[in-house]
Amino acid sequence: MNRLLIKNILLDVKKRDILIRDNIIEKIGSHLSPDAERVVEGKGKYAIPGFVNMHTHAAMTIMRGIGEDLSLMDWLHNLIWPTEKRLTSEMVYWGTKLACLEMIKSGTTCFNDQYWYLSEAQKAAEEMGLRSVQPFVILDLLDESRSEKIIEECIEAYEKSDSWPERNTFAIGVHSPYSVSAKMLKWAADFARERNSLVHLHLSETFAENQECIDQHGMTPTQYLDSFGLLAPNVLAAHCLWIDDKDIPLLAKRGVTVIHNINSNLKIASGYKFKYNEFRDAGVRVTLGTDGCASSNNLDMLETMKTSALIQKGWRRDPTAMPLNELLDLATINGATALGIRSGKIEEGYLADISLVDVNNYAFTPNINFLANLVYSANSSCIDTVICDGRVLMERREVQGEEEILKEINRLYRKLI
Amino acid sequence: MNRLLIKNILLDVKKRDILIRDNIIEKIGSHLSPDAERVVEGKGKYAIPGFVNMHTHAAMTIMRGIGEDLSLMDWLHNLIWPTEKRLTSEMVYWGTKLACLEMIKSGTTCFNDQYWYLSEAQKAAEEMGLRSVQPFVILDLLDESRSEKIIEECIEAYEKSDSWPERNTFAIGVHSPYSVSAKMLKWAADFARERNSLVHLHLSETFAENQECIDQHGMTPTQYLDSFGLLAPNVLAAHCLWIDDKDIPLLAKRGVTVIHNINSNLKIASGYKFKYNEFRDAGVRVTLGTDGCASSNNLDMLETMKTSALIQKGWRRDPTAMPLNELLDLATINGATALGIRSGKIEEGYLADISLVDVNNYAFTPNINFLANLVYSANSSCIDTVICDGRVLMERREVQGEEEILKEINRLYRKLI
Repeated sequence: MNRLLIKNILLDVKKRDILIRDNIIEKIGSHLSPDAERVVEGKGKYAIPGFVNMHTHAAMTIMRGIGEDLSLMDWLHNLIWPTEKRLTSEMVYWGTKLACLEMIKSGTTCFNDQYWYLSEAQKAAEEMGLRSVQPFVILDLLDESRSEKIIEECIEAYEKSDSWPERNTFAIGVHSPYSVSAKMLKWAADFARERNSLVHLHLSETFAENQECIDQHGMTPTQYLDSFGLLAPNVLAAHCLWIDDKDIPLLAKRGVTVIHNINSNLKIASGYKFKYNEFRDAGVRVTLGTDGCASSNNLDMLETMKTSALIQKGWRRDPTAMPLNELLDLATINGATALGIRSGKIEEGYLADISLVDVNNYAFTPNINFLANLVYSANSSCIDTVICDGRVLMERREVQGEEEILKEINRLYRKLI
Repeated sequence: MNRLLIKNILLDVKKRDILIRDNIIEKIGSHLSPDAERVVEGKGKYAIPGFVNMHTHAAMTIMRGIGEDLSLMDWLHNLIWPTEKRLTSEMVYWGTKLACLEMIKSGTTCFNDQYWYLSEAQKAAEEMGLRSVQPFVILDLLDESRSEKIIEECIEAYEKSDSWPERNTFAIGVHSPYSVSAKMLKWAADFARERNSLVHLHLSETFAENQECIDQHGMTPTQYLDSFGLLAPNVLAAHCLWIDDKDIPLLAKRGVTVIHNINSNLKIASGYKFKYNEFRDAGVRVTLGTDGCASSNNLDMLETMKTSALIQKGWRRDPTAMPLNELLDLATINGATALGIRSGKIEEGYLADISLVDVNNYAFTPNINFLANLVYSANSSCIDTVICDGRVLMERREVQGEEEILKEINRLYRKLI
């Protein structure tokens, strides 16, 4: 038995002690004094749930800054895919470590990945201590002859995932309706249903792909995926910028989770009029992600929260849009719920995924409204301590192994670009 | 004579030494070794020009977070103006100090203010060592009977400004065409012309004020101001979100500088389709500002740069919009030029307003594209050292007097809200 005590922390503006047993929040109260193996002093800090980054390509940190000022298809076909031909498993391992370092530093305790060399990515996430969903990528570029090999590798990866710690979850990564053949879409739907796997995919990110799908199949991408039985409560659909209003009730009915990635959408100019109110009001679960660092350059969920809310207020010309209390849920509990994880909330019985925020600085002065300061005034350097699955991954902004990660990336990236 | 030497700093990707004599960059070269009074080691850091925050209401830091999710007019009439009735000169002094602290911490070396209790604000800026433009606010709420008193106070303030250090510049702050009477607009135009003063005003921030002006005067706000002879190269016009396309050549012809404040515009939902390309192509000088902390919550110019570029790319559906090289100019040299200050560039003969950026961290790893990392990956915690007017205001993120400022604000804000 392993006990961790956080003392004198501010939780919902009240001073509290939080007792963690193994990886679970056992008790929240005042003046708790068990014989804990480790005590973290929380004086002058606020506790918040760890963020859940619902869409990223973690190892792409190693490509940070290679492609500025390009459109999505140009970026994908002429830059990313050619560069990825030089990608090695070692690069994915260290790239994922860098991503985990960055997420820990910015208060994220769980992420939903999608990238190559799954076993290396999982190993990096496991070593860094983060909770994660690790999808096997299915991307056959519409060439069905590749399907046999992909299926074989996917099943192999699925079987290997038995040895992963519980905090790393296997999933199916279906790249997108425009890059995966009908045969593989059908197979993925069946496989995910039978194994009860999560499915992480890209959906209606650009106007062009939407139109292409309608032209080719006479259906929107949403309807096309649904025709394979692929839409279900285990589906995590990234972007959803160009979802037709008529398809929103279908997504709600199927229980699909939508992942909004505003910084990436703006930067590569895919769109920005994300239908947050419409999804929410229809009962679709909305969550937030950063996307990978090759498109949106960082993995900062606080920035994502801020930009998401600003853009909703802006394009709707409604300053009350995406208010602060909803915003925190989008970045925490909504993601955790979508992933089937009892996290994203600081309550007894929940997983101990917690960040401590240092408010003794200009960004929180005065501290009239903590959440407004966190989102609109501060940046992620206010995250002082991060606890994931009951383990302290960062204290006073120090993460173990940081220097080695930076050194290895600086050695490796030159071979890639 | 006072000499400051920055050694081994990266400037445009080359290792350099920068020698500062008094407040001027005297020499940039390799292996400079004069007998400088002070040496700053720059190894592993990049030098960038200090940012110029072209529009803020500095002391409003003391109201940070009081009004979330409100529209501009509601915010102004029902929250800010009533709160300001309780405002004291002491609050402005400490609020401006907090603003200066925040700006130093985020790499801003010059700001264009507009707020009450001018002499207290100027005193705070002087003590903190920042370069600034300090306008006397003209706001009579269209009541011409107030004009005599305002004129008297303005002239008194102007005369007192003789004793200010050269880095603090007196200006006229004309609140806006909708809140200042015709009599005062005319007087301000004449006064500014005769004294060669800068004029800092709000212009076409909201759609409603634009329409109101057209309804009342049969002219757009731009044309209305021009009818008083108020538009000239000394005019710094904040927001300009709803400028009519027809008025852009007029602004160019008059030499007016436009200040874009995207975070504030989005947050209070004033608009977001800022006509950057159109202003630039017409020859209008464009600059960036944060606005005050009561509306946009922080004074972070790096965030402003990032959001400005993201939104331009987004609403124009053009990922090449507002590219990185232009973006840095918008935040530095363009502002300095508008203020008539030889700053905003690190070159021999320029004022020594310089920030040193620490790149030894995840946000700059890999460092393929420094400027992309600075704007799109990092946050302002990467600013390690700030030099303004030849003086070191921050080194290793330490600013003198920080604790006292936070303490005083925490004492004072409770009397205000």
